[in-house]
Amino acid sequence: MRMVTSVAAMQRLALRWRRQRTPIGLVPTMGYLHQGHLSLVRKARQQVGTHGVVVVSIYVNPTQFAPSEDLGNYPRDLPRDKRLCGDAGVDLLFLPDNNQMYPANDAVKFSTYVVEESLSRGMEGASRPTHFRGVTTVVAKLFNLVLPDVAVFGAKDLQQAAIVRRMARDLNFPVKIVVAPTVREADGVALSSRNKYLSLDERGQAVALWQAIEQARRTVRTSKQPIAPGRLKSELKWLIETRPAARVDYIEFFDPATFEPAAKVRRGAHMALAVFVGNTRLIDNARL
Amino acid sequence: MRMVTSVAAMQRLALRWRRQRTPIGLVPTMGYLHQGHLSLVRKARQQVGTHGVVVVSIYVNPTQFAPSEDLGNYPRDLPRDKRLCGDAGVDLLFLPDNNQMYPANDAVKFSTYVVEESLSRGMEGASRPTHFRGVTTVVAKLFNLVLPDVAVFGAKDLQQAAIVRRMARDLNFPVKIVVAPTVREADGVALSSRNKYLSLDERGQAVALWQAIEQARRTVRTSKQPIAPGRLKSELKWLIETRPAARVDYIEFFDPATFEPAAKVRRGAHMALAVFVGNTRLIDNARL
Repeated sequence: MRMVTSVAAMQRLALRWRRQRTPIGLVPTMGYLHQGHLSLVRKARQQVGTHGVVVVSIYVNPTQFAPSEDLGNYPRDLPRDKRLCGDAGVDLLFLPDNNQMYPANDAVKFSTYVVEESLSRGMEGASRPTHFRGVTTVVAKLFNLVLPDVAVFGAKDLQQAAIVRRMARDLNFPVKIVVAPTVREADGVALSSRNKYLSLDERGQAVALWQAIEQARRTVRTSKQPIAPGRLKSELKWLIETRPAARVDYIEFFDPATFEPAAKVRRGAHMALAVFVGNTRLIDNARL
Repeated sequence: MRMVTSVAAMQRLALRWRRQRTPIGLVPTMGYLHQGHLSLVRKARQQVGTHGVVVVSIYVNPTQFAPSEDLGNYPRDLPRDKRLCGDAGVDLLFLPDNNQMYPANDAVKFSTYVVEESLSRGMEGASRPTHFRGVTTVVAKLFNLVLPDVAVFGAKDLQQAAIVRRMARDLNFPVKIVVAPTVREADGVALSSRNKYLSLDERGQAVALWQAIEQARRTVRTSKQPIAPGRLKSELKWLIETRPAARVDYIEFFDPATFEPAAKVRRGAHMALAVFVGNTRLIDNARL
């Protein structure tokens, strides 16, 4: 497995692959890899075949964190990430640092951003106002550096995946966006690097997100008529917050194509939620 | 000379050229071509060589016009543009329509923009607040559709060229940005498609922009000390507005690397100005 830290070297290599007709698959990550990421690697391999190359980028992108957020202590374990990627058959690990991605001196600062202004308004975009602008900007940069034919994103960050897909379409990036299903623990908790922040007790309570999804599913599937979203939200919030460390940030029901809030909740609607468990903010989503 | 109107066909062709190692040069235009554009075509040819391909795009991009501006009557003469491009040895004319560039239906609207937030604040950005966001967005799209190795822009739109160069650098587009000198009429008036709007009398008065630049140059080059920009602006404004149809929008002196306003004007500083001549807004710029 090759390792590249320079953006110029990465792009040179990508341009050479393109000329050689080598299909390129990209899995952009912030590292601290888990089985969810490795499922994206397998999906990328399926897409590019054995003659293609699978690139995993590991970069904790500062522009998608607000000053109050967990950029500083986002979990890192590069030796373990390298081992996991090597074992998973990754061809290249792209490990740029901040100086490579956002070079800055007094005269010439970084000043260009990619913004998506529709899908990014609600949910994660409402709770984290500068988050998606950081995501679309860094993903545009990674697309230009790695020149992938296909890029794979996880369904756990469904809104992010939809925004990236919209960006690729609107700006005509020649990149196919593939979204791979959320990987869960035995009790239903979605895999996330941020689960590492949870104490043992909090980890037990984190199941509240999945239980709320299952409860919403049962309600929707047994109800004879569509349900008012406000009522269902209140019930689920109450259910989640019976766990002492859990505090709901948002619960939303929406059309997965447009991310417009659902006027009535029925089978096929999508649900997403964000919940603080202690100080750790967790998200999850599923089709009802 | 090939002509392509579909974005999908354009990108397929560009991907094929990239695989075949064919250098691609792009000259993005809004059509109604003049000798200034043709000088960009020659520059593109120099850059890609006889084995490379020169693509001229003609697209009057709605997102860079404000509602009050001249989108509706921007001059067009496609038969003449085709002839000029054919004679100039252009390999491909890319002629997308709005439906190709900003496809929209009720469910899925265009919602992604590229924004540059530093160089775009002053001058044209101050007078036309949404202009550069439209420019960077459409140029990003053209870069992804035509996949050029090199793109050529005119120095007449110096701020635009600087913003596009910054965008390419910040977002890591693998595109070299080349800026070609302004082409002028015998009396110094910069070639511009918008000169077409001028009556014969206004065309005579349009020389005021170039005369102001020459006056500023003389002042700076003969002055024993650096000059206060406010005083020089007032003098030049007075000079320009002795022409009855001319009204100054802005005159600025700045560092051409950062576009920061110059505290004092001296030789080597850059001057840019925008002047309404009748209802037509003209711009020009030069090193002093």
